[in-house]
Amino acid sequence: MSKFKKYRVGGKFKLSRIDPDDTPFLTGDESAQRAEVDNLAVELDEFQDLLHAEGRRKLLLVLQGMDTSGKDGTVRWVFSRTSPLGVRVTAFKAPSEEERAHDYLWRCHAAVPRTGEIMVWNRSHYEDVLVPVVEGWIDEAETRRRYAQINDFERLLTETGTVVVKCMLHIDKDEQRERLQARIDTPGKQWKFSMGDLEVRTKWAGYQKAYQYALAATSTEHAPWHVIPANSKRHRNMMIAQLLVKTLRDMKLKAPPPDPALKGMVVT
Amino acid sequence: MSKFKKYRVGGKFKLSRIDPDDTPFLTGDESAQRAEVDNLAVELDEFQDLLHAEGRRKLLLVLQGMDTSGKDGTVRWVFSRTSPLGVRVTAFKAPSEEERAHDYLWRCHAAVPRTGEIMVWNRSHYEDVLVPVVEGWIDEAETRRRYAQINDFERLLTETGTVVVKCMLHIDKDEQRERLQARIDTPGKQWKFSMGDLEVRTKWAGYQKAYQYALAATSTEHAPWHVIPANSKRHRNMMIAQLLVKTLRDMKLKAPPPDPALKGMVVT
Repeated sequence: MSKFKKYRVGGKFKLSRIDPDDTPFLTGDESAQRAEVDNLAVELDEFQDLLHAEGRRKLLLVLQGMDTSGKDGTVRWVFSRTSPLGVRVTAFKAPSEEERAHDYLWRCHAAVPRTGEIMVWNRSHYEDVLVPVVEGWIDEAETRRRYAQINDFERLLTETGTVVVKCMLHIDKDEQRERLQARIDTPGKQWKFSMGDLEVRTKWAGYQKAYQYALAATSTEHAPWHVIPANSKRHRNMMIAQLLVKTLRDMKLKAPPPDPALKGMVVT
Repeated sequence: MSKFKKYRVGGKFKLSRIDPDDTPFLTGDESAQRAEVDNLAVELDEFQDLLHAEGRRKLLLVLQGMDTSGKDGTVRWVFSRTSPLGVRVTAFKAPSEEERAHDYLWRCHAAVPRTGEIMVWNRSHYEDVLVPVVEGWIDEAETRRRYAQINDFERLLTETGTVVVKCMLHIDKDEQRERLQARIDTPGKQWKFSMGDLEVRTKWAGYQKAYQYALAATSTEHAPWHVIPANSKRHRNMMIAQLLVKTLRDMKLKAPPPDPALKGMVVT
């Protein structure tokens, strides 16, 4: 059985039963682990080349998680060996006035990957349900409606050649406290800290509940969620890198066959 | 005297006097050179972090050159260690109908780097003068007018916090022949080949002349051009990586100072 199965959301999945301290994908000592993440990053680079050469499909990686859960760090390490030619990142912040003047999927649709590309969403359309739910701006009927819209949108993407990988970076409240404190106490990290993070932190339980609902409502066959135990940064990187390599391997990417018309052609 | 001086366009610069086979930035043996390019790529990653932390300025790298001159390869190797979080690439192709409905700087302006970001342009607004000049679509008065517009546009960028680095990747016609032939003959590379490349190749002399004019007209104090001898791919990577590291070092980037309001704050 795949090691991923336990972490793939489906059936009676309960977020609260996943221990953020778990490290099922770590084996060996620290230096072996670092070397393996680096090897996986190189492998991702090779797959990305092939994805580009094939020129038919795309890959979308959605990263969700509480503040400090490691979305930026994941991109930094998992894509440390890929070229910016083929991997792009879109970070979704609080919507601008222009964005709020459109439906909430408008800005996301504009940022889907191109053919041959890997796109990473640092936060995503899920924020447009999670935040309103926790803040009490929408009722359950509207929540259900939005998750149905999201499932439809993701089905469109997968039916038109995009493989969608969704990861929820799962840390616990203590781990967040330590990471926020480190940002405050380390001069070189202070710029990452925002007072708003403390306010969101007071709503921790509400967000866990909203995530449970979101994961259950939108982990579909075409776009399943994986929960990533992420108190250990190395485990988080390792698990996501392995998930991506597995996904790309399963795509059976192939460079286009030689063009018979070019056989024997000589450039002068 | 800086090794770059000879390759920085100014005064009576003549493109034809730069030998594409030159390798002034290569020293030591091949494995030492590879290690150095990799070290420079790591250094660029560190500078990129600092650029982001500082949060005041941006860097724009413009890559121009004939087909096969190595624009993609430069991105691949020079940015092999930077994260897609902070480095983006925009490849400018033949303009779409929507783009042609606007002035030629419209799509470029939309793709300038954000604060804290490095943006690479694989081809650029220069194509919108070089191609029309070689094809005879515009006369010299219009050519002069466009280069003045370009200088104004680049001045706007530099005056609003963007450091602009412009590199012309200089290969000769024989080198291009070999590279195109390799694309035709290597099944895994065929997808990079386009019949249109052969047609543009017949206009080689016209493009060299158009580049000479462009370089002389737009190598300004605020946004100078460097010509990169690029028959050797390793030399091309080394020289551009060194130029970028030097540029970023000269920017004297600094993370913001500690915020006194956060001193002693404890996260609960």
